[in-house]
Amino acid sequence: MIQVITTVDLRPECVDEFLVLLGENIPKVKAESGCLAYDAMVDVSSGLPTQGDLRPNTVTVVEAWSDMEALQKHLGVPHMTTFREAAKPCVEHIRHQVLRPV
Amino acid sequence: MIQVITTVDLRPECVDEFLVLLGENIPKVKAESGCLAYDAMVDVSSGLPTQGDLRPNTVTVVEAWSDMEALQKHLGVPHMTTFREAAKPCVEHIRHQVLRPV
Repeated sequence: MIQVITTVDLRPECVDEFLVLLGENIPKVKAESGCLAYDAMVDVSSGLPTQGDLRPNTVTVVEAWSDMEALQKHLGVPHMTTFREAAKPCVEHIRHQVLRPV
Repeated sequence: MIQVITTVDLRPECVDEFLVLLGENIPKVKAESGCLAYDAMVDVSSGLPTQGDLRPNTVTVVEAWSDMEALQKHLGVPHMTTFREAAKPCVEHIRHQVLRPV
């Protein structure tokens, strides 16, 4: 299993628009072979001092894939290319943490 | 569901020791009520330019909890206090991303 933490920092005025685009794309991603999880998340306060400030303009997608091959295939599917193009104007910064089990 | 991404930066000479401590603690965490997932992960290269440099001394724990109450209870259980004390000398920096579904 490969897990991916995708952190997307958005232009403040674009968060809602991005969430609509993301919401439309999620069913297509979840239908991909090897997709074990694809959850769109936002910060919630926990009181943990190690959490730092909440990020109102950040969306985090927590993904799980059966293996690296499934992830690599996902990166090239047409609906991801379409989604990236549509979402591009909203995105200020994007970071991927790609993880394997210890 | 609440998801927690715990990023632990370790002293280089302490990674193996930390992983042993973590491995011993994981079954106890997974037995806690409300624990849906608790996966110890490390970076793996994906070729994605947005991944940045691999972090050889970083362990990421990807957690899922049924709700905030289960997470808060987890933070105070005795085996987590014991684990934190034992792991403390190895830890250089720890960061929690605490997330709720959009």
